[in-house]
Amino acid sequence: MKFLLLTFVGVVHLLSLSSGKTIYKNDISQRTFQEIKEEIASYGDVAKAIINLAVYGKAQNRSYERLALLVDTVGPRPSGSKSLEKAIQIMYQNLQEDGLENVHLEPVKIPHWERGEESAVMLEPRIHKMAILGLGSSVGTPPEGITAEVLVVTSFEELQRRAPEARGKIVVYNQPYVNYSKTVQYRVQGSVEAAKVGAVASLIRSVASFSIYSPHTGIQEYQDGVPKIPTACITVEDAEMMSRMASRGNRIVIQLKMGAKNYPDADSFNTVAEIIGSKYPEQVVLVSGHLDSWDVGQGAMDDGGGAFISWEALSLIKDLGLRPKRTLRLVLWTAEEQGGIGAFQYYQLHKANISNYSLVMESDLGTFLPSGLQFTGSEKARTIVEEVMSLLQPVNITQVFRAGEGTDINFWIQAGVPGASLLDDLYKYFSFHHSRGDTMTIMDPKQMNVAAAVWAVVSYVIADMEEMLPRS
Amino acid sequence: MKFLLLTFVGVVHLLSLSSGKTIYKNDISQRTFQEIKEEIASYGDVAKAIINLAVYGKAQNRSYERLALLVDTVGPRPSGSKSLEKAIQIMYQNLQEDGLENVHLEPVKIPHWERGEESAVMLEPRIHKMAILGLGSSVGTPPEGITAEVLVVTSFEELQRRAPEARGKIVVYNQPYVNYSKTVQYRVQGSVEAAKVGAVASLIRSVASFSIYSPHTGIQEYQDGVPKIPTACITVEDAEMMSRMASRGNRIVIQLKMGAKNYPDADSFNTVAEIIGSKYPEQVVLVSGHLDSWDVGQGAMDDGGGAFISWEALSLIKDLGLRPKRTLRLVLWTAEEQGGIGAFQYYQLHKANISNYSLVMESDLGTFLPSGLQFTGSEKARTIVEEVMSLLQPVNITQVFRAGEGTDINFWIQAGVPGASLLDDLYKYFSFHHSRGDTMTIMDPKQMNVAAAVWAVVSYVIADMEEMLPRS
Ligand SMILES: [Zn+2]
Ligand SMILES: [Zn+2]
Repeated sequence: MKFLLLTFVGVVHLLSLSSGKTIYKNDISQRTFQEIKEEIASYGDVAKAIINLAVYGKAQNRSYERLALLVDTVGPRPSGSKSLEKAIQIMYQNLQEDGLENVHLEPVKIPHWERGEESAVMLEPRIHKMAILGLGSSVGTPPEGITAEVLVVTSFEELQRRAPEARGKIVVYNQPYVNYSKTVQYRVQGSVEAAKVGAVASLIRSVASFSIYSPHTGIQEYQDGVPKIPTACITVEDAEMMSRMASRGNRIVIQLKMGAKNYPDADSFNTVAEIIGSKYPEQVVLVSGHLDSWDVGQGAMDDGGGAFISWEALSLIKDLGLRPKRTLRLVLWTAEEQGGIGAFQYYQLHKANISNYSLVMESDLGTFLPSGLQFTGSEKARTIVEEVMSLLQPVNITQVFRAGEGTDINFWIQAGVPGASLLDDLYKYFSFHHSRGDTMTIMDPKQMNVAAAVWAVVSYVIADMEEMLPRS
Repeated sequence: MKFLLLTFVGVVHLLSLSSGKTIYKNDISQRTFQEIKEEIASYGDVAKAIINLAVYGKAQNRSYERLALLVDTVGPRPSGSKSLEKAIQIMYQNLQEDGLENVHLEPVKIPHWERGEESAVMLEPRIHKMAILGLGSSVGTPPEGITAEVLVVTSFEELQRRAPEARGKIVVYNQPYVNYSKTVQYRVQGSVEAAKVGAVASLIRSVASFSIYSPHTGIQEYQDGVPKIPTACITVEDAEMMSRMASRGNRIVIQLKMGAKNYPDADSFNTVAEIIGSKYPEQVVLVSGHLDSWDVGQGAMDDGGGAFISWEALSLIKDLGLRPKRTLRLVLWTAEEQGGIGAFQYYQLHKANISNYSLVMESDLGTFLPSGLQFTGSEKARTIVEEVMSLLQPVNITQVFRAGEGTDINFWIQAGVPGASLLDDLYKYFSFHHSRGDTMTIMDPKQMNVAAAVWAVVSYVIADMEEMLPRS
């Protein structure tokens, strides 16, 4: 045993630090890490079979082709729309025809917001039609629009400092792009902060890593007790231009028209399919992506790709005649973009069974060539996931990063369930995110093949191992 | 001599091959290459002074700031527009205030086309509003638009093969992007080829290296005897989607509305300024860019950058108190985008003096970090230009490529005058070219500093050398 320990000295050290003792005797039930390692290594042939089928075999390009057919046919699938409803019905049929088990829909009430007609025209210092995209949940303007002078700020701090100047104006945020999670605060809270200081509307520089004059939409949130003012995103280009104009002392006037409207909640569904476990059918590995999208582009990347490699993972496993010990459950969430509405409902409905969830997985950061898996869970579970990822050596994707996440699986992760997500080129992802550029053009069938192989190997092996992933 | 020859063995070899003898005794008048090399080397301090002023000194970021002020103030400057007229007047004043000499305007009649309102909606197989940009010189549609079925082709060859299917249809070209000069043929000739086989309109995949659902406009050409049908560019994304739909057997129907209209020719000007030569004032090195742009974006890259580093070259030389032996002439062309209209007029007016043009330069491929100079001319002249570019060692930009060109200087190059252009990242250039994304956001002051330094060193040294560049 000691010799073998030495070969995993890094792991042992880490585990010793975190638990104060080695895990071998007590922590992952009675099994040594070496036994688990051997168990995982025994999946080498299965992993190769999955990779061969997905990347080189009959299934290659299948997830891309299936996705293209759906998003070309249905188009974007915003929460509350007919097209989302249609997409759910098509997927329900697709999953049944694919021979998956327990295919069913779980009802959810979801928000219904429509942008309507919208426009923004700079009237001073010169006439300039600006590209905008109203932000999800925003109220509209009166039909004649809102015409007001602009106050350009680059941060919430600057807005506070210049609060007396904001009254009656349209606040334009020209915040720099740092990263999505930081910068998106301007999109989410920009209207509330502007309204607090008396602004009549807010226009937010698109939260994007790259722009070809492309506005990027997304959800925003009003706050009780703060006036609801119309809010839209503008392009990086126009935000920067207005910032330059303001710094030269130009007076900027914009006429903003937004037909945005919130409608009563709509009926929708999370779409579920399974491969039922052979030995512990009540135990679950959940793989998922969301079927809804924003109302521009095709929602091919966000999150068509994630939804379709999740389906593909089950298809690959089924095609190989495999049935894991635990149930593999595919969930295609509804209304993720409105804040994980479908996933919250699912969590409420199923959380009583939380002790049976071995791993929750969501792919919602792109299905380009994966750089690896993001994982959140105990260090013991991480060690196991690292071993599982070593099975993906044939496609050279073995890295396990921190911070597995996803709007839809975070409910479970926060409650202690191990969670995994797929990581890839985020600069590319946030170039197209929530824009009209989110189409099949940026999807690559070969990259999707590899992403699906990673997704299938991880979900299958963890669903089939003798024990559930250990929690903290 | 022999020793020195050996140090330039590559050059000698090349020259020997092309001329059948060495150049030293007879070809560049009576001077040896070594003498010329020493003459060029003597500009080392001047080159360093230019670089220091442009890149590290008082002039840094000046061309960027000047450009930003113009294009933010005036916006895009299409041929025949009030904004182009305004830009010319502003530049006329700028150049005078800068203290340049012989600042004047040379009148030109230029085309005046306006796109008007335009839209394209896919009606079948599903409703989808498409982004389009009508192509320059295109006729419009009737007010009610043209509603027709689509024929998607990927090449002119496919269009020929399927000619019987084209009658009464809207031809959609989904040609792959190979490179600009090859692929642009679809934009320029697409409508004529479609009309020849009976199509009622043509929609052309944007000629672009990269897309975020961005249409890219540009000029197109009708042909006598072929019906003039409306033509616009669509996004790469929509062209690919329609191609997929067609390959699945979907019937595609589009309603195209274009308010495009050609107006009578407008009055315009080439804008000229000089630093008059001290010894051979009648001899000229011409540096140039075009002031007009397409009617979308800001024309910051195409060709604001080229125009403003050309101005900057003269400013830098003047600021250093330099006056070359030959006249340095800045020309800001008008109506380049309509096919070098201003430049053709200039050529007609000045070609009698062609023997006095030592070098014509145009920057119209971006002013990002230069990869080097493109040069067309005799091998002897190339050798000299290579020596001049070695003066730019301090900014590490010394390469001389083939094929110096520019719509506006090609008239001179084809008549035997040596020509030079600035080369940089063409993938980036054609990501934004003729799109709404051509704005100050993609311009980088530091890169423009370096581009201006290259431009100033080359133009100054060649204007100041004892002899003109040798022709073939
Ligand atoms: Zn998403
Ligand atoms: Zn140009």
